[in-house]
Amino acid sequence: MCTAATYKTKDFYFGRTLDYEFSYGDEVTITPRNYPFHFRHIGTMTKHYAMIGMAYVADDFPLYYEAVNEAGLGMAGLNFVGNADYKGRESDKDNVAQFEFIPWILGQCASVKEARVLLEKINLINTPFSQELPLAQLHWIIADRNEALTVESVMEGIKIYDNPVGVLTNNPPFNEQMFQLNNYMNLSPQAPQNHFSDKLPLHAYSRGMGALGLPGDLSSQSRFVRAAFVKMNSVSGDSESESVSQFFHILGAVDQPRGCCDVGDGKFEITIYTSCCNTDKGVYYYTTYDNHQITAVNMYKENLDDSYLVRYPLIHGEQIKMQN
Amino acid sequence: MCTAATYKTKDFYFGRTLDYEFSYGDEVTITPRNYPFHFRHIGTMTKHYAMIGMAYVADDFPLYYEAVNEAGLGMAGLNFVGNADYKGRESDKDNVAQFEFIPWILGQCASVKEARVLLEKINLINTPFSQELPLAQLHWIIADRNEALTVESVMEGIKIYDNPVGVLTNNPPFNEQMFQLNNYMNLSPQAPQNHFSDKLPLHAYSRGMGALGLPGDLSSQSRFVRAAFVKMNSVSGDSESESVSQFFHILGAVDQPRGCCDVGDGKFEITIYTSCCNTDKGVYYYTTYDNHQITAVNMYKENLDDSYLVRYPLIHGEQIKMQN
Amino acid sequence: MCTAATYKTKDFYFGRTLDYEFSYGDEVTITPRNYPFHFRHIGTMTKHYAMIGMAYVADDFPLYYEAVNEAGLGMAGLNFVGNADYKGRESDKDNVAQFEFIPWILGQCASVKEARVLLEKINLINTPFSQELPLAQLHWIIADRNEALTVESVMEGIKIYDNPVGVLTNNPPFNEQMFQLNNYMNLSPQAPQNHFSDKLPLHAYSRGMGALGLPGDLSSQSRFVRAAFVKMNSVSGDSESESVSQFFHILGAVDQPRGCCDVGDGKFEITIYTSCCNTDKGVYYYTTYDNHQITAVNMYKENLDDSYLVRYPLIHGEQIKMQN
Amino acid sequence: MCTAATYKTKDFYFGRTLDYEFSYGDEVTITPRNYPFHFRHIGTMTKHYAMIGMAYVADDFPLYYEAVNEAGLGMAGLNFVGNADYKGRESDKDNVAQFEFIPWILGQCASVKEARVLLEKINLINTPFSQELPLAQLHWIIADRNEALTVESVMEGIKIYDNPVGVLTNNPPFNEQMFQLNNYMNLSPQAPQNHFSDKLPLHAYSRGMGALGLPGDLSSQSRFVRAAFVKMNSVSGDSESESVSQFFHILGAVDQPRGCCDVGDGKFEITIYTSCCNTDKGVYYYTTYDNHQITAVNMYKENLDDSYLVRYPLIHGEQIKMQN
Repeated sequence: MCTAATYKTKDFYFGRTLDYEFSYGDEVTITPRNYPFHFRHIGTMTKHYAMIGMAYVADDFPLYYEAVNEAGLGMAGLNFVGNADYKGRESDKDNVAQFEFIPWILGQCASVKEARVLLEKINLINTPFSQELPLAQLHWIIADRNEALTVESVMEGIKIYDNPVGVLTNNPPFNEQMFQLNNYMNLSPQAPQNHFSDKLPLHAYSRGMGALGLPGDLSSQSRFVRAAFVKMNSVSGDSESESVSQFFHILGAVDQPRGCCDVGDGKFEITIYTSCCNTDKGVYYYTTYDNHQITAVNMYKENLDDSYLVRYPLIHGEQIKMQN
Repeated sequence: MCTAATYKTKDFYFGRTLDYEFSYGDEVTITPRNYPFHFRHIGTMTKHYAMIGMAYVADDFPLYYEAVNEAGLGMAGLNFVGNADYKGRESDKDNVAQFEFIPWILGQCASVKEARVLLEKINLINTPFSQELPLAQLHWIIADRNEALTVESVMEGIKIYDNPVGVLTNNPPFNEQMFQLNNYMNLSPQAPQNHFSDKLPLHAYSRGMGALGLPGDLSSQSRFVRAAFVKMNSVSGDSESESVSQFFHILGAVDQPRGCCDVGDGKFEITIYTSCCNTDKGVYYYTTYDNHQITAVNMYKENLDDSYLVRYPLIHGEQIKMQN
Repeated sequence: MCTAATYKTKDFYFGRTLDYEFSYGDEVTITPRNYPFHFRHIGTMTKHYAMIGMAYVADDFPLYYEAVNEAGLGMAGLNFVGNADYKGRESDKDNVAQFEFIPWILGQCASVKEARVLLEKINLINTPFSQELPLAQLHWIIADRNEALTVESVMEGIKIYDNPVGVLTNNPPFNEQMFQLNNYMNLSPQAPQNHFSDKLPLHAYSRGMGALGLPGDLSSQSRFVRAAFVKMNSVSGDSESESVSQFFHILGAVDQPRGCCDVGDGKFEITIYTSCCNTDKGVYYYTTYDNHQITAVNMYKENLDDSYLVRYPLIHGEQIKMQN
Repeated sequence: MCTAATYKTKDFYFGRTLDYEFSYGDEVTITPRNYPFHFRHIGTMTKHYAMIGMAYVADDFPLYYEAVNEAGLGMAGLNFVGNADYKGRESDKDNVAQFEFIPWILGQCASVKEARVLLEKINLINTPFSQELPLAQLHWIIADRNEALTVESVMEGIKIYDNPVGVLTNNPPFNEQMFQLNNYMNLSPQAPQNHFSDKLPLHAYSRGMGALGLPGDLSSQSRFVRAAFVKMNSVSGDSESESVSQFFHILGAVDQPRGCCDVGDGKFEITIYTSCCNTDKGVYYYTTYDNHQITAVNMYKENLDDSYLVRYPLIHGEQIKMQN
C-alpha cells in the first residue's frame, strides 16, 4: 500500500511512498497556472496555482498520486480499499470526481484553512476517469507547514479529521489508526526504565530498547505507527540537504523490500517510488526501488505561466558513482 | 549498534550497517597482497590475500570494521558489549589481538572451511591497539557464498556457531538470538490465514499482515529478527544492479534514523554508513547517512601486488541529480 | 474494568467479571414476575419475566450489573467511559434511563430477536438514579443461545452491533474491537508452522507457541482479544459441572490479580466477582476475589410469582476444604 | 508444561501448576521422618525431614512433582525437554537419580544455603525409575523464604542459577528466560506515560495499559514473563486466607484452559492441578482443573515420626456451594 508523511525544518516537506506490484508509468508532472482543468461536472478551471507531483498522465490529464502547489499546500491520495465510498451527484454540492480531487484543492487553496472551506461543500462522486481506469478507493492527506488533515469519503459521507501526526497509510479509517497510537504511548527513543519490578536486576542490554513493541511488519496499521514514531522523533539539521536526507530516512522506515509482501501469482508489492517535495521551494525529490540516488525536479525552472503539462519520466536503475 | 548481512544471487554479497553516534573517520581501504601485517605476537605476514573494506587507519594499520578478500571470504566485527571477553597469551595458541582478527583470517583463508581450521587454535587476546584506542568488545561473522559462521570470545572461551541466517547484530550471544527466531516462525510474507476461529469472519484488511508480530524497534534482538526476515524472503533479479539494490533494501530495514535512538547528552545513534561488497568482483559499495547515492570502489582497479594501503575517504552529503 | 462472555454446550451460559477497586455491596438478586418496575418516564411494568443476576439494590430497585431472565436471555452492562452518551427525552421513543435498561429488556424479551424490536424505538436517557448514584457510562451485551449483540449509546445515537464472539469488554467501541481481532487471525491453539523461511531450522521449543502474539495485559482491548481466543477455542464436556468449570476458566484468562492494575492512591483494580449463569436452568454461579469456590443460587427455588426482591449477599473469604 | 512460583507475606508460599494432557494419578503425599528412602546408588536415608507435596507413588516410592519439607524448603521439578541431560555415575560425586532429587534435597536441607552445599557434589544420573517410567527431562526450582535457585543438568554439566524472580517454567534454559525479562522492563502496573511524542494528544483509554506488551499465550517463555510480572507486583494482606487466595491468582494468570493448547490427536494440555504450600505451617493447598474450590492437607495432622507414606487422592469435580 502506501505511506505519506510531512516534515518541517526551516522549510516544509511533503512526500510519500507508493507501494504496489506494478507501475502505470508515473512521471514527475508540473501543471502550470494556465493549463485548463476540464472537470466533469463543475466546469473548467482555466487559471490556478501551479503544482508539481507524481502523476500518471492519461489523455493529457494529470492523475496525481500526490502533488504540492506553489502556495505550499500538499495533498496525497492513498489506498483505502473497502472503506472508500463515492456518491452520486448532488445539486447543491461541488461534484468532484475522485480523480479530480487533488487538482480541485491544489488549484484553488493556499492553505489547509482554505481547503477546509472548499471541503464543506464537496461531494466526491463515483465517476470513473475512463473504462480502463476505474475508480481508485482512496483517502487523502492535505497539509501545509501549519497543520494537516485527512479526508475520507465513506458510506456515512465525508469525514474530515485533524491529522496531528502528519502521517497517513491505508486501512483502517484514520480515526481508528490515531486511536491505536495510544497503545504505543509508552514507547520512547530513550533507554527504557525498569518499571517491571524494582526487586529485579533488569537492564538495557542494547541501545534502542526504549521502543520495544514498535511493530515492524508492512501492514498499514503497523506502518502508520512506525512512520509516526520515526517522524515525531526525527532530529536533523535544517539545511535543504539534511532535511531531505532525513525525510528519506523517515519513509525508509516503511520501505517495502521485494519479497516481504507476497500478493500471490509470484508478485510482490514493493516501494515503487518515494517522494519528498520542498513545498516552499517547489523542488520535487524522488527515489525509485532500483535507484537509491535522489533525483530532483525544480518547478520554478519551468515556465509556470504556460498551459501545457511538463513531464519528466523517472530515472530507474542504480546510478552508482565509481570512486576509482 | 550494527547489523551485518549476506545475500546471494549470481554473485555473493556481504555487508553491514555501522550504527554509532560519531565516526572515527572511516575510509574504504584496500590492502594489497604485499602490505606487511605486523602482528603483535605472531610475527609479520608479508604475503596474503588482498582485501577491501571499511577501516579506520591508524599508524598505517587498517583497523577493519569489515572487509572481504580476493578469494571471496568476508568478515565483519560487531559490538558485543558486556559479553566479549579476551584472554591473556597462551603458548600453544595463535595469539591474535582483537584488532588483528580480520586481517589474520582474511589474509590467509579462502573460505569459511579454511577459517574453521585457523579458528581451532586461535586465542583472541586482550592487547589494545594503543592507549587511545582501547579494546572494542566485538563478535564476528565470517561468510563465503556457501556458509557463514559467528565467532564469539566470551568468558568460557571461543565459541563458534554456524550461522544459517547470514545475519549478525549485537547482544545477546548469537545462539540466543537464533533461538529467539523460533518465536517468529509463524510470520510470513503471505497473507495470514484465519486460525483464530473458523466461526469468526476475520479477514486481512491490508496487505502485509502475514508478518504482524515482526518487531520494528532498533534494539539488537529486534534488528536481528527483522533483518533475518527480510533477507530470507528477499526476491530480486541476479544482475549486479538488482542484487546491490536489493542488498541495500535488506539493510534499509534496520536503518537507524536520527532521533530514534537517543543515547543521552543530545546524541543519537544513527546508521553512519551501510556497505555491500560483491565478494566475487571485489567491488565495495556504500551509502552514508547523508548520501543516499551508492558509491563504489573496485579493488581490481588498484595494483594488488603493491605494499601500500589504498584509501578512499567517504563521500558525504547528498549527491542529488537535478533532472531539469 | 470488566469482561463479559457467553458459552454454549448443551445449555447456554452467560456471565462476566466485575473489575473495580471497590464494591458497592453487590447481591445475587432475583426479581420475581410480579415485582413492579417503576420506570421514570415509561410507567410501571407490573408483570414481566423473572430474572436473576448481580445487583446493587437501592431504594428496593435492583440496579443490575448483569442478569438473565427465565426465558433464557442474558444482558450485562460494562464500563464504556468517554464514549457512552445518553440523551434527553424524545416524545416518539421509549425513554429508558440507563439504569433501567436491563430490566426493560429482560422483563419483556425472550430472545435477542425480540430485543432487536424493542431497541428500534429506545432512547437511553441521561436521568441518574439519584444524586448519590450518578450515571454510569456503559455499553451492553445481550445474548441468547443463538446470537449476541452489543448496544452502545454514543454521541451519534444508538449503535447496535452483531457480536459473533459473544465477548464484551470496554473501550474502544465494539466495532473497533472486533476490527482489531483481524490482527490476531493467525493465532492458533495448535503448534506453529515455519512460514518464516524454509531454509532455517526453526522449531517449536514449547507447547502453546501457536498463540504467540496474544496480549497478556489487563487493558480492555487486550482482554477482549484474550477472552475471545479462549472462548472460541474452548473445549469441554457438556455436563453442568464441566460447562460451568470451563466457563470460569474462560473468564479466569482475564482475571485481574491485585497489584497488576494500579489506579493510584494505593488502590488496585481487581476482579471483584466472576459470574456464570446457566440461562436454561436459572442457576447463577459466582466466585469472588477471595473465594475461589463456586457458589450458586437457583432462581427456581424461589417463588417467582412473588412481588418482592430476593437477595443473597455474596459469600466472601476462601471456603477451604480440609482433607485431613 | 508447568509454572512454579513463590510468594512471601508473613509466611512463605511455594507452589506450581502442573500442565499436561493426562494425569498419572497424583496424590497429596506426606513422607514422615522415618520413611526409608532407598536410593539407587547412595544407600538408604532412614531419617530425614518430613515433607508434603504432590506425588505419583510407584512401588511405595513418592515420585514428587513438588514438595516442601518441615524446615520450610520447597522444591519443584518442571519439564525441560530437549535441554535436560543426565550423566553416568562418577565415583567422587553423589550419584542421585533424577527421580530421587527432590527427596535427596528436601530430606537433608533446611534452606537454600544448605542445598547449595549438597549441590556442589551432586551428579544427576540417567537411571530411570523403571521400564514403564522412563527419565523425565526436568529442571528444578529450590526456594525458601530468603532466596531461590534453579538447577539444570545439561550437556555441559550442572548449572545453578540464582532465581531472583522465584518463578520457573520450562524452555529455554533459565538464564535465557531471565535475560528475556529485560525486554519487558518498561512494563508497569501503573498507567502509561506518553513518551512517544509530547506533540501528540495520546491518552490511556483503559485501565491496565501500563503492561501492554505482556505476552498472553501459553508458551513457556510467555508464561515465565507473565507469572513474573504478576508475582513481582502482587499486593495482598498477609493473613493465611488472603495470602493463599493471592497465590492462586498469581498462578491463575498462567492457567491453561482446555482447548487453547492443542497437542494433536484431539488432546489438549490443561492445568491439571495448581498447588500452594505454606512452607511455615506445612499446609498444602490445591485446586484441580474441574474443582475451583481450594482443598488442603495439613502435614502436622499426621504422625510425622511414622515410617509410612500418607496419601490423599485429589478431590475432582466442582464442589459447588448452593446458597439456596
